[in-house]
Amino acid sequence: MNDILGDWKRTHYCGHLTAEHIGSEVCLMGWVQRRRDHGGLIFIDLRDREGIVQLALDPDRDPEAHQKADRVRGEYVIAVKGEVSPRPQGTLNPKMKTGEVEIEVRELRILNSAKTPPFMIDEYSEVAENTRLKYRYLDLRRPALQRTLMLRHQVTRIVRDYFAGQGFLELETPFLTKSTPEGARDYLVPSRVNQGNFYALPQSPQLFKQILMVSGFDRYMQIVKCFRDEDLRADRQPEFTQIDCEMSFVDRDEVLSVMEGMIARVFREVVGAEVALPMPRMTYAEALERFGVDNPDLRFAMELVDISGLVRDGGFKVFTDAVQAGGLVKAMNIKGGATLSRKDLDDLGEFVKIYGAKGLAWIKVNADGWQSPITKFFSESEVAGIAEALKAEVGDLLVFVADTFRIANESLGRLRGHLGHKLGLIDKSAYKFVWVTDFPLLEWDGETRRHVAVHHPFTAPMDEDIPLLDSDPGKARAKAYDLVLNGSEIGGGSIRIHDSAVQSKMFELMGIGDEEARIKFGFLLEALEYGAPPHGGIAFGLDRLTMILAGTDSIRDVIAFPKTQKATCLMSEAPGEVDEKQLRELGIKLAVRPK
Amino acid sequence: MNDILGDWKRTHYCGHLTAEHIGSEVCLMGWVQRRRDHGGLIFIDLRDREGIVQLALDPDRDPEAHQKADRVRGEYVIAVKGEVSPRPQGTLNPKMKTGEVEIEVRELRILNSAKTPPFMIDEYSEVAENTRLKYRYLDLRRPALQRTLMLRHQVTRIVRDYFAGQGFLELETPFLTKSTPEGARDYLVPSRVNQGNFYALPQSPQLFKQILMVSGFDRYMQIVKCFRDEDLRADRQPEFTQIDCEMSFVDRDEVLSVMEGMIARVFREVVGAEVALPMPRMTYAEALERFGVDNPDLRFAMELVDISGLVRDGGFKVFTDAVQAGGLVKAMNIKGGATLSRKDLDDLGEFVKIYGAKGLAWIKVNADGWQSPITKFFSESEVAGIAEALKAEVGDLLVFVADTFRIANESLGRLRGHLGHKLGLIDKSAYKFVWVTDFPLLEWDGETRRHVAVHHPFTAPMDEDIPLLDSDPGKARAKAYDLVLNGSEIGGGSIRIHDSAVQSKMFELMGIGDEEARIKFGFLLEALEYGAPPHGGIAFGLDRLTMILAGTDSIRDVIAFPKTQKATCLMSEAPGEVDEKQLRELGIKLAVRPK
Repeated sequence: MNDILGDWKRTHYCGHLTAEHIGSEVCLMGWVQRRRDHGGLIFIDLRDREGIVQLALDPDRDPEAHQKADRVRGEYVIAVKGEVSPRPQGTLNPKMKTGEVEIEVRELRILNSAKTPPFMIDEYSEVAENTRLKYRYLDLRRPALQRTLMLRHQVTRIVRDYFAGQGFLELETPFLTKSTPEGARDYLVPSRVNQGNFYALPQSPQLFKQILMVSGFDRYMQIVKCFRDEDLRADRQPEFTQIDCEMSFVDRDEVLSVMEGMIARVFREVVGAEVALPMPRMTYAEALERFGVDNPDLRFAMELVDISGLVRDGGFKVFTDAVQAGGLVKAMNIKGGATLSRKDLDDLGEFVKIYGAKGLAWIKVNADGWQSPITKFFSESEVAGIAEALKAEVGDLLVFVADTFRIANESLGRLRGHLGHKLGLIDKSAYKFVWVTDFPLLEWDGETRRHVAVHHPFTAPMDEDIPLLDSDPGKARAKAYDLVLNGSEIGGGSIRIHDSAVQSKMFELMGIGDEEARIKFGFLLEALEYGAPPHGGIAFGLDRLTMILAGTDSIRDVIAFPKTQKATCLMSEAPGEVDEKQLRELGIKLAVRPK
Repeated sequence: MNDILGDWKRTHYCGHLTAEHIGSEVCLMGWVQRRRDHGGLIFIDLRDREGIVQLALDPDRDPEAHQKADRVRGEYVIAVKGEVSPRPQGTLNPKMKTGEVEIEVRELRILNSAKTPPFMIDEYSEVAENTRLKYRYLDLRRPALQRTLMLRHQVTRIVRDYFAGQGFLELETPFLTKSTPEGARDYLVPSRVNQGNFYALPQSPQLFKQILMVSGFDRYMQIVKCFRDEDLRADRQPEFTQIDCEMSFVDRDEVLSVMEGMIARVFREVVGAEVALPMPRMTYAEALERFGVDNPDLRFAMELVDISGLVRDGGFKVFTDAVQAGGLVKAMNIKGGATLSRKDLDDLGEFVKIYGAKGLAWIKVNADGWQSPITKFFSESEVAGIAEALKAEVGDLLVFVADTFRIANESLGRLRGHLGHKLGLIDKSAYKFVWVTDFPLLEWDGETRRHVAVHHPFTAPMDEDIPLLDSDPGKARAKAYDLVLNGSEIGGGSIRIHDSAVQSKMFELMGIGDEEARIKFGFLLEALEYGAPPHGGIAFGLDRLTMILAGTDSIRDVIAFPKTQKATCLMSEAPGEVDEKQLRELGIKLAVRPK
């Protein structure tokens, strides 16, 4: 075949060569990171996925190779043969793994040329993201992205290995499934054979993994793409990857313990962090009480304090009204925050308004007393009570939101997270895990005037709360759990309902009639009648987990070919227009002109 | 939470218990395969994914457990505690792994009841496939299907482990891609954000894996779902799984050698078969010459013989005409076939007609001479020549097809495969691998009057055949290869074009204009200009491979939730109708009424 490589075979990756290899004959292949001429010699930084090594071409030693080297430019693809040599004294580069050596090149082949790329392939260049996404094949050459995707590969290796060792089977669930418009919006796929009908891409393999438990596979896992056609926030993608698990004959404690083992192994092997097991747990109620949110960042303190009891009958009408209307007054002590400017305080006020709060009350604890627009309304005992509850000291800033349970907690909880970053309260090297448990089972949707499932409709209620399903369903707690890491939910799951009567009751509470339930979930309901084992599971977001492990804030850094917030791929230009014939075969037509 | 399991924890799988465990206290959970009463005792066969074990309930030992056991029916889910005991003399079951023991049950809990299933959960019941597919969750309980899906899991484990050890990275490619109507029909996904535009589900990650090579990832693999909206044959599914690989800086030999290592390891570890390496290779031309097809089954001989030269100027006009028109006369000696009846011969004639042959000429080699409608046309030297070429012996049946190159080869080659099974010529325990190489690069499509790529448009021509691209493109051979096992293609790939000029030339030969190429494959063409390494790869069909390893003829046995030939899922009833609102959001409408 006379291949371009002929009988050349690569012997090493560039990035692996160190002083140990001095004297070895090597054959390397890679990309020209940089070429420079220095006193007649040519030096080339040759790059492959493992790193960079310096090539040296001496016209006296090998005039032909030197001549060819003279023609190469950045991003040319070349192969070289030569000897690993120590770098001359004074030219060592301690910043590079290969910095002690260079390759005395004897033969060089140009395997491919390259146009000048629109941006430099190095770690430091700042390029507009749209340009990077259009030329993703070049952007992916950057060492930072290569490392991140290799880390992702390493994570999936460890996860699969761990679960296989625990007796889990990786089983594939279908991508062409049925649309069950519950939760997020489905991506639809028109059927050609059954015109007028549609498949949906799965939002998760939830129903199928439960079916696998009913089928007796006992322990299932899958690393699998899922799809949601939602308006994208910065950290969302239309297709995302889940580590999806389900287990039979287990209770909550066993699920959590198996999952903790997986997480601990990943963190140990990927970033060398020892995670203390068992991980701490916190009920949903406690998380809201102490942190205002169900995904608390435990890398710093600054907990919320409920002072409703203190101020219920006090002198400040905003507070008393809120409490008497059934709401809360939550407070937080920002240590050392008394130095914040008026402008800063206004900004904090604007921040809590995003979450529906009407405003943020504040008190500066100065050496000469409290400075605040609201202190004048408080009695002495109120002042004393607040000071004690918040452990107020000189230099502190006390902040307050008085509102409904939801708004008081959420707005102040979010403010806490915001300030944790802004004020540098966070130990960035820490990994703080917490299981949040005992979520509410249902929440009331005022718009559709029915209950909706907080987790999903297949989540089991706590056994002792089953009577509440009849008397006060909104109070019933679920056997649901989230794993929160540094304030991010990285996984969530539940023990499922294995009793078809309880499942029917759930649908009834959610206002899903028998006929509707049959159409949407009929096969699961039926399956539950034929001997379903107690079972439960969880799904982790692989993208989010990888982001944390790689220390990046952008989900687009952990996905080889990500989409923009408009759900387009700037490289392949997907989505695109299709032929009229394709639509005709599917029995559909456009109701709009393509944008 | 008062879980139904309370403090019970399973200690063993049912199927793992042997005489070694006698005396152990165990806690088991599973499904009731069978319950029988015998002299006051109750025996239950308890099933889980690992097998079945016998439970014994004695009313004197534990009246409460016995009473509960009296209520259980087939497929009830139960948990028991008890002691592993030797079975009484005379009741051992040597056919079961657990046949030496039974569990003396002391406590029993019913975890769930079950309606009477529509069919028995055992290996032997013959149930209509549509019923099995509708109740897939019950069908999947059958030990044969469980074993097959566990085998599939084992295969993917080994494959991933092997490739990781070889420095491959598993990287995810997108599912929402651009439609490039080339090859099979795409499944389309309407875009909501970009109304009027569509994504396509990938037929393979071909373009993306090449991009990953351009990006320098060096070695890529992925076990990944692919999609083709084609009319389904018995062994096809709309979604199927590929073991997809790509390597940089390699030639064909290195790709084949790495892949052989993977296959050998899978066969060793999964079915205990030692595959001799390197695997034999055969050019496409040789495969057609000797076997008439490019996926020869090497488990038996019965090769085809080209007798065109012998009969070109002979007396039988059907033969001479075919040869003089540029066609062939291919023959095959069916050893011992002289005993076939006239009806059998007619059937063979009908068989070759499926592949376009006008008929099958035949000669029976009897002890008293040749019996045939055509012998009379042959000269003595032709008879002698044919006899020698086909090594004819008394009792043989010689068969002939005279037609174009394609029809003569294909019809007789398919007949060979058919007879291999029908006449029992095949050693069913053998695994016969062969790499078929040197495929044609292009073939002429008479309908569209242009060349189409035999493998795909990114396949590299053999270097020595590049001049043929200008002079006689149909003659150019490709650096393509298929791995054939027992007559089935289980994988196929090629060395790719890494030179953008050659790639443009290929598109030109295929009548794909610059504009069309830019729209369909623009990013790959562009990527090739920025320093693409020599690269190549392959994709294996995981479903097919698993079928062969599991020894099943049905692709639906190796997929947990398969679709019918109408591309429907009988369990979930996908595809289905969707809400008008969903379509409106997507900017499409139905052109037909749903069927």
